[in-house]
Amino acid sequence: MLVLGIDPGTAICGYGFVEYVGNHLRNGEYGAITTSSKARVEDRLAKIFDGIDGLIKSKRPDIMGVEQLFFNRNVTTAIPVGQARGVVLLAAAKNDLPIVEQTPLQVKQAVTGYGKATKEQVIYMVTKLLNLAAPPKPDDVADALAVAVASAYVAGNPIWRNGL
Amino acid sequence: MLVLGIDPGTAICGYGFVEYVGNHLRNGEYGAITTSSKARVEDRLAKIFDGIDGLIKSKRPDIMGVEQLFFNRNVTTAIPVGQARGVVLLAAAKNDLPIVEQTPLQVKQAVTGYGKATKEQVIYMVTKLLNLAAPPKPDDVADALAVAVASAYVAGNPIWRNGL
Repeated sequence: MLVLGIDPGTAICGYGFVEYVGNHLRNGEYGAITTSSKARVEDRLAKIFDGIDGLIKSKRPDIMGVEQLFFNRNVTTAIPVGQARGVVLLAAAKNDLPIVEQTPLQVKQAVTGYGKATKEQVIYMVTKLLNLAAPPKPDDVADALAVAVASAYVAGNPIWRNGL
Repeated sequence: MLVLGIDPGTAICGYGFVEYVGNHLRNGEYGAITTSSKARVEDRLAKIFDGIDGLIKSKRPDIMGVEQLFFNRNVTTAIPVGQARGVVLLAAAKNDLPIVEQTPLQVKQAVTGYGKATKEQVIYMVTKLLNLAAPPKPDDVADALAVAVASAYVAGNPIWRNGL
């Protein structure tokens, strides 16, 4: 099972592929789509949409993982984050790619065993679990891989898979 | 000049066309794209994107007007509103449609002459300015027409038009 994890943002949209076979995790391509603050917002969103759409079409993941956000801690970033998240979800819908949504707490729980883990602990565990030579940079990429790992655990679970 | 005004939302996305010729306003088609809360969020966003994309392609407006949101009064709706706004802006970008963004205060100022006008006053003025037989329903449609009127005033202004 190939999972695409996304950490949506207008300036930096992190993405990471994780392959989950048996109970073995392996990282695929990861990185970030970045957009210039000098560009018009609609062009930035188009770049994000096209980037994610292209990744889906070329890699054909089985599911997309993305964090569920009921609200954003920082009120002034909620609208831009929502906008980026909107075009990411649209890219999944346009490619018939099922989405696994989990809360930030569930993602931390899955990756570190502790729902209130720090950002550093999450990055440390992602680096360990995927045998990466160094922590992925920027943090948005590590976050995307963390969501991918957590989504792989959920979607790869036979209880979930068989709809039980 | 034909202006498409949008009031983005995931459940109800209001839209309204306004024609602005000389200093004369005339309403075109208006209504709302509605989505079911039972549908998956990505499918709801796809319905909004396809709906706005279809309106742009069939009516060929000259500009799109949409309110600029730095934050949402209601923190729990900021993400869903942002998501809907994201796919609306994407539809404009994909059709090379220029966007006019104005704050809610600017829209109220333009439509009623008073930046702190009530929702009722905005609806009253939109109904008057466009010679509508009755106030448009739901409120999201009236809001979309208000944005269209305010955007027409800005974009139709020769000072703005000539980039002065």
